[in-house]
Amino acid sequence: MAKAWTLKSRPAGMPNHENFELVDLPDAPLGPNQVRVANSWLSVDPYMRGRMVDRESYVPPFQIGEPMQGGAVGRIIESNHPDYAEGDLVQHMAGWRDVSVAEPMAMLTKLPETGLPDHLWLSNMGLTGATAWFGLMKVASAKPDDVVFVSAAAGAVGSAVIQIAKAKGMKAIGSAGGPEKCAWVRELGADACIDYKAGPVLPQLREAAPNGISVYFDNVGGEHLDAALACSVPFSRYAMCGMIEVYNDFEKGVSQEMHHLMMLVGLRINMRGFIVSDFMADFPEFHQDMGAMIAAGAVKSRETVMDGIESMPDAFLGLFSGKNTGKMLVKV
Amino acid sequence: MAKAWTLKSRPAGMPNHENFELVDLPDAPLGPNQVRVANSWLSVDPYMRGRMVDRESYVPPFQIGEPMQGGAVGRIIESNHPDYAEGDLVQHMAGWRDVSVAEPMAMLTKLPETGLPDHLWLSNMGLTGATAWFGLMKVASAKPDDVVFVSAAAGAVGSAVIQIAKAKGMKAIGSAGGPEKCAWVRELGADACIDYKAGPVLPQLREAAPNGISVYFDNVGGEHLDAALACSVPFSRYAMCGMIEVYNDFEKGVSQEMHHLMMLVGLRINMRGFIVSDFMADFPEFHQDMGAMIAAGAVKSRETVMDGIESMPDAFLGLFSGKNTGKMLVKV
Repeated sequence: MAKAWTLKSRPAGMPNHENFELVDLPDAPLGPNQVRVANSWLSVDPYMRGRMVDRESYVPPFQIGEPMQGGAVGRIIESNHPDYAEGDLVQHMAGWRDVSVAEPMAMLTKLPETGLPDHLWLSNMGLTGATAWFGLMKVASAKPDDVVFVSAAAGAVGSAVIQIAKAKGMKAIGSAGGPEKCAWVRELGADACIDYKAGPVLPQLREAAPNGISVYFDNVGGEHLDAALACSVPFSRYAMCGMIEVYNDFEKGVSQEMHHLMMLVGLRINMRGFIVSDFMADFPEFHQDMGAMIAAGAVKSRETVMDGIESMPDAFLGLFSGKNTGKMLVKV
Repeated sequence: MAKAWTLKSRPAGMPNHENFELVDLPDAPLGPNQVRVANSWLSVDPYMRGRMVDRESYVPPFQIGEPMQGGAVGRIIESNHPDYAEGDLVQHMAGWRDVSVAEPMAMLTKLPETGLPDHLWLSNMGLTGATAWFGLMKVASAKPDDVVFVSAAAGAVGSAVIQIAKAKGMKAIGSAGGPEKCAWVRELGADACIDYKAGPVLPQLREAAPNGISVYFDNVGGEHLDAALACSVPFSRYAMCGMIEVYNDFEKGVSQEMHHLMMLVGLRINMRGFIVSDFMADFPEFHQDMGAMIAAGAVKSRETVMDGIESMPDAFLGLFSGKNTGKMLVKV
């Protein structure tokens, strides 16, 4: 019998434990082309908050009473598909449970046996690393002479952006909450890291980037985005990846107060939202480049790991209180 | 003796007549390659408000006590340049005066004798029309199947955008202030025109574009931009041309309250600021296409004309109270 986390109720504002329920899933027989996977690692990501809202979006909302979804890595324990055998290492999106039924049509992919730790496929070699890589290299078209500013730089995506930027010879400035996270971001190679909990972002960013920034990788929105606008050089490019600052306030209709949005025009800023799944066709290029940087030691990963399927809500909720440094994962 | 408007003091908030002074300019002898032009038409444009602020920007600020600058059309009355003769029709940027000294290095260009009215070189055939054309066609890469939303659609740039969009087979929705302006925008061919003075923009835009918009040409920022974000389809493109709503509040540090900025990410919106002078190299393409549309009657122009050099401040200030329909000009 598999265990799965369902959405019990839709959160209003910050989610809490009442919104989730762990249920037993009966072991139904596999359908055609399906496989059964014993998951070893489960991912929690900020974007999942958006799927808890009942509205049209780029991914359909989670349904009340149904198991939630998310990235997972594990090994096949039963297969009804000719190309997938028992023991194969796979990645899929039927997470939030210890044992999943998945199929290739629904984002099941076989992983190579590289000797890399399995959980890397949920962090730097997975959607997290891909988000960083495609955002920086393709959306913002960052080049070695760019000065890159990254918010949530101690997070899973942000810490990858910092390291990719440095590996490519760019200047990289991070922002993180608290001296420990900032120290870690600097350890990753950042030229500077702003502590947004220590004071307003704008004066700190001006000091860290006296000649301005030319690329902004936005994970948070709000004050960070406004500060970036005030510090940009002409023709800056912004990769708009997320706005965690407002995810939990969206239903309340909270507004972001932008003082410097007008800079967009005069500075000819190019601000572009993106979702990593739009770049699926280019994943081989990402895997090759990222794999080489990891092998060379230029991109390191760090995980905040919680143990056991029971800890999924704790792990997810921790994303919004900054409990993670690097990628937040659950080890089943 | 020429007459010129100087900036007497920098405006704080909305400019007023106290900020301007009309002075006599002594007729100095021409320097090498200079010409003297008797101006027949002078342009006032919202961007000039930005040049009244003493800060770094894409164009240098106007200096206190110095003649201001802006678009002008006239005929040469004295020439020290071998390629320019007395009687030549020219366009230049030494406006805000009845007689100007100009030179090719400083944006003086000879105009062809086309039979078109001279003032068109300050409206649809000039920087105004070029701003509309490059913003729509190059910045937003608009195509025939796009649904284009244009703010300040009864303004000089906006009314050109509406007509270009319709001439190219797009759906065009405008926003303007008051029933008369809206009626004119519909006359220009707009499929719908929202009256932003009659109520909030968002519900009106939802009604005018039930299937969403895919291109937004922003002249105002603020509430219009926020409504566009709430009504966009995936992969929408925004040409960010100006934010007249906040031009006069910039020094006060006023903020724009954005409720839907987060849509940028999930919808992969591409928001790009631009300035028409970045496209100077492509002006021949614009002149050819726009000239053909004007000749075919597909793009008409309308001017709000004030008479005499004395009326320059009235004309300029009128831009911020919506006194103009179409391009605001001064006939010297």
